[in-house]
Amino acid sequence: MGRTSEARVKILSAARSLIELRGYSALGVAEICKAAGVPKGSFYYFFDSKEALALAVIDEHWTGQRSTWERVLSADTGPLDRLRRLFEETEAGQLAGQESCGSVAGCLFGNLTLEMSNQTESVRARLQEIFEAQVEMVEAVVSEALERQEVTVTDTREAARSVVAQLEGQVLFAKLYNNTRRLGTLWTNCLALLGVRTAGEVTAGA
Amino acid sequence: MGRTSEARVKILSAARSLIELRGYSALGVAEICKAAGVPKGSFYYFFDSKEALALAVIDEHWTGQRSTWERVLSADTGPLDRLRRLFEETEAGQLAGQESCGSVAGCLFGNLTLEMSNQTESVRARLQEIFEAQVEMVEAVVSEALERQEVTVTDTREAARSVVAQLEGQVLFAKLYNNTRRLGTLWTNCLALLGVRTAGEVTAGA
Repeated sequence: MGRTSEARVKILSAARSLIELRGYSALGVAEICKAAGVPKGSFYYFFDSKEALALAVIDEHWTGQRSTWERVLSADTGPLDRLRRLFEETEAGQLAGQESCGSVAGCLFGNLTLEMSNQTESVRARLQEIFEAQVEMVEAVVSEALERQEVTVTDTREAARSVVAQLEGQVLFAKLYNNTRRLGTLWTNCLALLGVRTAGEVTAGA
Repeated sequence: MGRTSEARVKILSAARSLIELRGYSALGVAEICKAAGVPKGSFYYFFDSKEALALAVIDEHWTGQRSTWERVLSADTGPLDRLRRLFEETEAGQLAGQESCGSVAGCLFGNLTLEMSNQTESVRARLQEIFEAQVEMVEAVVSEALERQEVTVTDTREAARSVVAQLEGQVLFAKLYNNTRRLGTLWTNCLALLGVRTAGEVTAGA
């Protein structure tokens, strides 16, 4: 196989699997190429460095996840209902990962934040952009819910950030216990963080 | 320097700093010994493996942190006020770390959960025990607050877990943005998660 875009796809896919399994730091380029089934020359044709590969893996994962988030958060239903579906999608995604590889992989962005953000400024900057984009997407829905008087937050940005922080924290627990049911509390916690008291109120509003 | 307990302390201290800086996987025993200023033979006198060292670093860190949590959470003040102080201590601890090494290190247990829990079962089990202990300590305080009717949770265990998850999520953001002020929202979010609506109500109750 030569320097085709197919080789690039294989490298990205192998790198993502290996990063999810073992993190970034412990990986070597030779190992990634072996798993991808491409010669080392191909790697350096497509990527200047392992760091460039990490950024490409992050970008590719975000492209897919952003499209899921956009689809779920722009659905034709009440704003809080869309947030609930986002958590359901997250749980389903982690469960699918666990079924395919045996372990809850967690959030690639959260994993790389804790592993790499203090080592590689380009990765830190990219992860900041992604989390800001996530917070913005959640904030838009929270603002809509606020206009409909379904939530009682005073600062929609901070509220959205807290919802994403709770998501990251619970995904961490899901990974630690290798149990996606940990994510079942996300919806209740989101309602609490947004100042909605009971599920009954929400169902009525959605 | 021989096989003294001083050498063990130096190895643990160097390993902890290096793990906080660069994670566990990328470290080698030789590098740890060089940073500690001890011969490699000393390492294997005290530790069977790098994994054994990781467990010792985790245990040592938890011994210190548990003692802080116990002191703060058993203080002679209202239960919610003790939780507030726990978040202040966390923020102060992360700030002190940032001042000494330039970067917010984050939570050693959260970092190692995302990096190692799917690779090393002994580390996963130890981290589970530590997070369970944290949740139990928070739950005891939440139960006390519930008896005083200061909170409105229905499941104190789940509520405590959500508070710890929020803590981990916000510490992740503090690390990502290298900014401990991200932790300033912990108190408000804790009140929301525990079903306490306004800070005024809490101050009155504490």
